[in-house]
Amino acid sequence: MLPLYCRKRVLLLGDNLSRYLQHSSKHNVSTGNGCDQVSLLLRLCEERHFISPGAFHARTCVYGPLGSDLKKNILGQWWTASIRSRARVFGINTSVHTRTCEESVMIVNYRTVQENFQQDSLTREEALRLFFQNSMSLRSNLLQGALQQYIQALELVSRKLPFGLAEIGLCHQSTDQSFGHSPGCISEVTESSLVWFCSPRTSSQWIDYWARQRLQWWRKFALGPSDFSLCDVVEEDLKDGTLRGIKVLYKFPWGLETLETLWSLGNTELQKTYQGTHSKLECRDGRKVVVPHVISISGDMDKGMLAYLFNSLKQQKKTDSKQKQRTVLRLHPTLTPVKVALDMGRGSNSELRQVCEGLLEEFLEEGIPTWPGYLDTLPLSLENLHTKYDEMGVLFTVLVSETTLKNGLLLVRNRDTTVRETMHISEIKGFLLRYIYASENL
Amino acid sequence: MLPLYCRKRVLLLGDNLSRYLQHSSKHNVSTGNGCDQVSLLLRLCEERHFISPGAFHARTCVYGPLGSDLKKNILGQWWTASIRSRARVFGINTSVHTRTCEESVMIVNYRTVQENFQQDSLTREEALRLFFQNSMSLRSNLLQGALQQYIQALELVSRKLPFGLAEIGLCHQSTDQSFGHSPGCISEVTESSLVWFCSPRTSSQWIDYWARQRLQWWRKFALGPSDFSLCDVVEEDLKDGTLRGIKVLYKFPWGLETLETLWSLGNTELQKTYQGTHSKLECRDGRKVVVPHVISISGDMDKGMLAYLFNSLKQQKKTDSKQKQRTVLRLHPTLTPVKVALDMGRGSNSELRQVCEGLLEEFLEEGIPTWPGYLDTLPLSLENLHTKYDEMGVLFTVLVSETTLKNGLLLVRNRDTTVRETMHISEIKGFLLRYIYASENL
Repeated sequence: MLPLYCRKRVLLLGDNLSRYLQHSSKHNVSTGNGCDQVSLLLRLCEERHFISPGAFHARTCVYGPLGSDLKKNILGQWWTASIRSRARVFGINTSVHTRTCEESVMIVNYRTVQENFQQDSLTREEALRLFFQNSMSLRSNLLQGALQQYIQALELVSRKLPFGLAEIGLCHQSTDQSFGHSPGCISEVTESSLVWFCSPRTSSQWIDYWARQRLQWWRKFALGPSDFSLCDVVEEDLKDGTLRGIKVLYKFPWGLETLETLWSLGNTELQKTYQGTHSKLECRDGRKVVVPHVISISGDMDKGMLAYLFNSLKQQKKTDSKQKQRTVLRLHPTLTPVKVALDMGRGSNSELRQVCEGLLEEFLEEGIPTWPGYLDTLPLSLENLHTKYDEMGVLFTVLVSETTLKNGLLLVRNRDTTVRETMHISEIKGFLLRYIYASENL
Repeated sequence: MLPLYCRKRVLLLGDNLSRYLQHSSKHNVSTGNGCDQVSLLLRLCEERHFISPGAFHARTCVYGPLGSDLKKNILGQWWTASIRSRARVFGINTSVHTRTCEESVMIVNYRTVQENFQQDSLTREEALRLFFQNSMSLRSNLLQGALQQYIQALELVSRKLPFGLAEIGLCHQSTDQSFGHSPGCISEVTESSLVWFCSPRTSSQWIDYWARQRLQWWRKFALGPSDFSLCDVVEEDLKDGTLRGIKVLYKFPWGLETLETLWSLGNTELQKTYQGTHSKLECRDGRKVVVPHVISISGDMDKGMLAYLFNSLKQQKKTDSKQKQRTVLRLHPTLTPVKVALDMGRGSNSELRQVCEGLLEEFLEEGIPTWPGYLDTLPLSLENLHTKYDEMGVLFTVLVSETTLKNGLLLVRNRDTTVRETMHISEIKGFLLRYIYASENL
């Protein structure tokens, strides 16, 4: 009997994390600080609604509300950096379906398969051939889609180099069988892709340029920028026709993992896509006419999100309490999913609640992502409240209390400094907007 | 021999448009104004980079740069309206994989299939059973994913009703075989979904509330709001357990099509998802404990985009020329992908180009989507330039000319009024930002 294939997504977590977890649980050993950090983050992600409970160990990845917003923010920033702020990069949106090849993940109708294979008039080989004829494949990356858009894009740029095509999309990959899980596992990854067309003369400079840009981008939102690094792909690992490769790496507790890969592909891939139409591919490079070189830059954004989560996890000495440590998810203000939490102290509940509701309305109108903590019916101590919001990465906690009813003053606590400030209710919105705006334009 | 299944995506265009196109081309008749409008929009979408050439007739849908940005803007607005501005709605991000059922689209490894079916030791039935065991399915809608998140979401809201879970994602559907294309066709749709959990007592009010909200949302960005309408699903068309249904319709030239559907599902779907765990599902509704009713609101955002394209297509009398008509894509300022086009008049090229590049940099830094028209090496007459940008839906055309070099004055043309204003170069950025901001906050 063949092994039962896994039906779950193998995502987010590379095999390396799974291996790491299995190893440490099997041997019941703590591998030092790294392992503690991994378990801490896993617990935190589950408890604080970044990832669905059980998701890590079950190797699936369903994001909770906070994880979902964090990922959206990361993708939004990538899009802004790649397209909105560059005149020579255009966004595209290609199909998830692609040509079938030996490596591919196929998609097919349940009923069609059933009908095909129950036809006794067909031999097994005929049925199999028919099956392949009748099914489509799902893309494993975004490069092919971009190459197929090349000819139309030429028109956009009047055949002038350089230019780029950008896309964010879902890709499916067959997982390799080397570790634990059975063959047939299919993983689902949100990929970011920038395909850059440039003159052969300058392609080597361009890959360096983009590698620096990408590293800078990852570091821009990092608390510990030095955990992100570049490395060249050694010549032996390059595929035929590929001129160079550079990787953006992140240092996870269990080792280095690739977040993004840059390949200088020469023009072979482009020529393969448009067999026999060489002249159509030509562009102007100053006064010369050339077939451009292709640089492909593709990132695994699910892994990137995990990198930012690990990077922003800090255990800090408490300044305002007897407990030794506090755990904070110091996500970048631009990325963090919840900017403000609204809570209320004890007292005349319905009046305080009204104030909270007014503020909530005001914040949401301005597009400030706000957590309505005052709705929670199990009131926490102030200490536990701060622990909760620190672990959620909430930038500010705004506390409405009896005092607010008297003189309009709120207590505003900063996640990073733990400083509590008193502020008038009429000033809070402006303060938050200025802070968020400033952090986005750092 | 079984028919060859289509390998292309059947998307964007409902069967009705395809039928409409086939009919009018076969009979070579113009069906009046409607048909003209359809051909006009199709031409325009292809020429102006909304959709890849040939996409409509080939029944695939690959978006060009403008289409890609338009779709992003629509999705962004949906997200803002559903989540960012509501405290009781949470975003989620579930897997595209789902449980296998008779209707479903399956996904499987190429190699796995090959290996399975070439095992002679297995009978045909065994091989088929194994195949189903080893494959996953792709979701056809987002409802199931949201229902599976229900228990965890309860924790977020302290078991208090009402609340909602929102998601935007790709879904795959088997296309019905009634029209033209062969069985086995699989279509790819970007769906928006809001699943609302509320007290059984109020579910009927809630579905009305959401229907009004959704209609309002569609109309907010429409040039001709009356083309969007609501209609009740008649009782005979309701599935078992479904209490009510309401549709948001758009009047395309070939007839009404559904953009969004609201179902009041009672609690049967929820109980099906969590068989036998009735007590876990319970929520507080004031002082009572209830199993909530589910309202599912799901939209086809690709069709929605097409609706906005048709809705904004206008043929207007020209005020500034002898030609009788001009064609304008009057997309809402918030949705239109390109806000400004930068062009230059004749004259000292390199100096004008420098001014353009400076402005482009400035605009992009502020996040104003700008079209670098000055890069085009085939200069158009001013008339043709305006035609081009009107068809692209560009809000403003900024013209840098010899005059600009002398006294800093630019010519700024408004898409909707066709008025040309003279403006100093130092004022243009502020003007654009104010205009865009104002239109977003209408």
